[in-house]
Amino acid sequence: MAKRKVLIAQGGGPTAVINESLVGAVLKSRDYDSAGAVYGAFHGVSGILKEDFINLSQESPENLENVAKTPCSALGSTRDKPDEKYCQEIFKVLKAHDIGTFCYIGGNDSSDTLRILAEEGRSADYALRCVHIPKTIDNDLTVNDHTPGFPSAAKFVASAFAGVNLDNRALSGVYVGVVMGRHAGFLTAAAALGRKFDDDGPHLIYLPERDFSMDTFISDVKAANDKYGRCVIAVSEGIHDAAGAPIVTKLAQEVERDAHGNVQLSGTGALADLLCDAIREGTGLKRVRGDTFGYLQRSFLGCVSDVDQREARAVGEVAIEHALGGDRDGTVTIHRTGGGASYGAEYKLSKLEDVAGKTKVMADEFIASSNSDITDAFADYLKPLLGSDMPEPYRLEAERVGKILGK
Amino acid sequence: MAKRKVLIAQGGGPTAVINESLVGAVLKSRDYDSAGAVYGAFHGVSGILKEDFINLSQESPENLENVAKTPCSALGSTRDKPDEKYCQEIFKVLKAHDIGTFCYIGGNDSSDTLRILAEEGRSADYALRCVHIPKTIDNDLTVNDHTPGFPSAAKFVASAFAGVNLDNRALSGVYVGVVMGRHAGFLTAAAALGRKFDDDGPHLIYLPERDFSMDTFISDVKAANDKYGRCVIAVSEGIHDAAGAPIVTKLAQEVERDAHGNVQLSGTGALADLLCDAIREGTGLKRVRGDTFGYLQRSFLGCVSDVDQREARAVGEVAIEHALGGDRDGTVTIHRTGGGASYGAEYKLSKLEDVAGKTKVMADEFIASSNSDITDAFADYLKPLLGSDMPEPYRLEAERVGKILGK
Repeated sequence: MAKRKVLIAQGGGPTAVINESLVGAVLKSRDYDSAGAVYGAFHGVSGILKEDFINLSQESPENLENVAKTPCSALGSTRDKPDEKYCQEIFKVLKAHDIGTFCYIGGNDSSDTLRILAEEGRSADYALRCVHIPKTIDNDLTVNDHTPGFPSAAKFVASAFAGVNLDNRALSGVYVGVVMGRHAGFLTAAAALGRKFDDDGPHLIYLPERDFSMDTFISDVKAANDKYGRCVIAVSEGIHDAAGAPIVTKLAQEVERDAHGNVQLSGTGALADLLCDAIREGTGLKRVRGDTFGYLQRSFLGCVSDVDQREARAVGEVAIEHALGGDRDGTVTIHRTGGGASYGAEYKLSKLEDVAGKTKVMADEFIASSNSDITDAFADYLKPLLGSDMPEPYRLEAERVGKILGK
Repeated sequence: MAKRKVLIAQGGGPTAVINESLVGAVLKSRDYDSAGAVYGAFHGVSGILKEDFINLSQESPENLENVAKTPCSALGSTRDKPDEKYCQEIFKVLKAHDIGTFCYIGGNDSSDTLRILAEEGRSADYALRCVHIPKTIDNDLTVNDHTPGFPSAAKFVASAFAGVNLDNRALSGVYVGVVMGRHAGFLTAAAALGRKFDDDGPHLIYLPERDFSMDTFISDVKAANDKYGRCVIAVSEGIHDAAGAPIVTKLAQEVERDAHGNVQLSGTGALADLLCDAIREGTGLKRVRGDTFGYLQRSFLGCVSDVDQREARAVGEVAIEHALGGDRDGTVTIHRTGGGASYGAEYKLSKLEDVAGKTKVMADEFIASSNSDITDAFADYLKPLLGSDMPEPYRLEAERVGKILGK
């Protein structure tokens, strides 16, 4: 049997561990005699059209291991979503380079691209194995228990809120932190994992799975501030009103829209500033501060979950095992084998159409009935994913001294 | 000699290592038989007025070590700047509790408070040792080579820019990151330490030590984007025009001012959004994103320089040695004993009035003649402070594959 090449590409938003999957796939390919050279396409499917390939078979294991530990798509990424015509152009290039396997590391859009390519390949009678390797900080892929990239981003968000809670405790006021997530609130909900003591923030958490009402929000903030003398709030960038309109559009006269007509949510502090203004106006509180976590949460150098690293490596390896060892198309999916301290994960090959273009959001059992917090079930779900070295804050424990002047 | 109590408090903005200084002072006090109980005042000088004290002598070494590793003032903080009358109220409380030594961990405001207290003590014939323990992420204290808290915040900023540079390389566009620093640009300049390869960002760095011109800024961004096909920019929140007016005020109709009349710069995304709009309008570029690093850079749980930890511990210890062992007032200052790999620091006791109320900014030799970058001298200055485990990004090294279709 002639050796045919393997092509790997990365699509969509980068994550802290997306290169673990790349390196897992590259190194695993070296176990198969049937595999020819392993190519990487720069900037996802857009690089395929341009024949912008690198020969990953030349990479030393040492450099690959260093790249694996580096955040953000080493091959570059793209937001392109190929249609049928785009796919036909892709086939011309794959054919010219004799590529027999295409592994695409990405979210539900990338999965959908592979679904189309696999179908087109069958109609065109071009033998192509298409295997999707999951990745997204949004944690919104169906079938999967969770997705590589999410645990590390969640660790960043939990660490950030643990820190701003301490900051807010030292200099009290109201703090709003805006977290990525258009439709799924998993990453925002991770803010809760920064809590340790009963009065720790975030005291309020707002997710896109629930309609957002400004009146309820203001009265929630008032109540929390009355109770704690301060208030830390985690908000998803995707919060929307009952009609589905993003809250951020209430401020912006002109909003930026992407190629799919979605309002641009990241890369602007508008939502945090809008909410801070509303709090000042609605509560009369003066020290109100807002941060938008932005791109740091998916790219920060040096904040990674070791569980996430291992799993991201594994899904890359498993993809190659199915493509080269099993001659199968599909999407690698992660399934939990045990909870809490006995946490474990196993990997299956699922159908591309079961994940492609679909979005998972948080289950009702993960969201508190107040609609402004998460449940213990969510904390139990997320905790083992954060890895072995999540830092923990401590407090002074000694007693207060009796007053002498007592004024 | 009767044992008199030691009082410790923390003032101003929290840092990642401010509790190392607290714990250093508490544990070192235990070496002195002359020291009575060690009290901590909650929320700085404001807690003294309220007699809001904790007896730190009851704290176990184990818990103190855990607190030392926790970011943000464990005793809470304050923005109060006492005047003469306030100081007289403080004396009443110190006298009532028989406090003979007051160590205040803070920046130039806290140092000034101690200067006033020491003077008032002498006029009131109240025997009080006042020792200032330096702390500030702004790195703006005179006499000091650098200040505890700055290296850890600098590591956060460098790690963040190393990450967003990778993100921006994967999905190209223009990225603006706004960093804390009203008058001193040290922390913004730290962004440059995230660079490794020649084409790495930040490609442009704007500091409050130089006047900011929007026209020059736009043409700088155009030129950098033409050269690199993308552009990462680090901006200090304190940038101002030639007349000294903060750039952020150009947007905001109503700006928030603090008790000292300073425009509120942190806790809002306004400056990043203003600059992004200006770039879109001035260059026609479409993918322009802005983040404001906000409170994360001084509080993030789990990003700390080990050099900073050690030095913050040491300044707390040295303060007690001078107060209890030497019976002297002053401010502990850090001095560099060697550069590069032979980096070392020594600690002296300087006069309170040499640091109190003064602000150090970046030396001209640290700022490139372009006014939009730093010099190698600054990189050499900062690098040893970032500690032993600053992560490093890696790239794929293999060759590009020849095009077959060559379109």
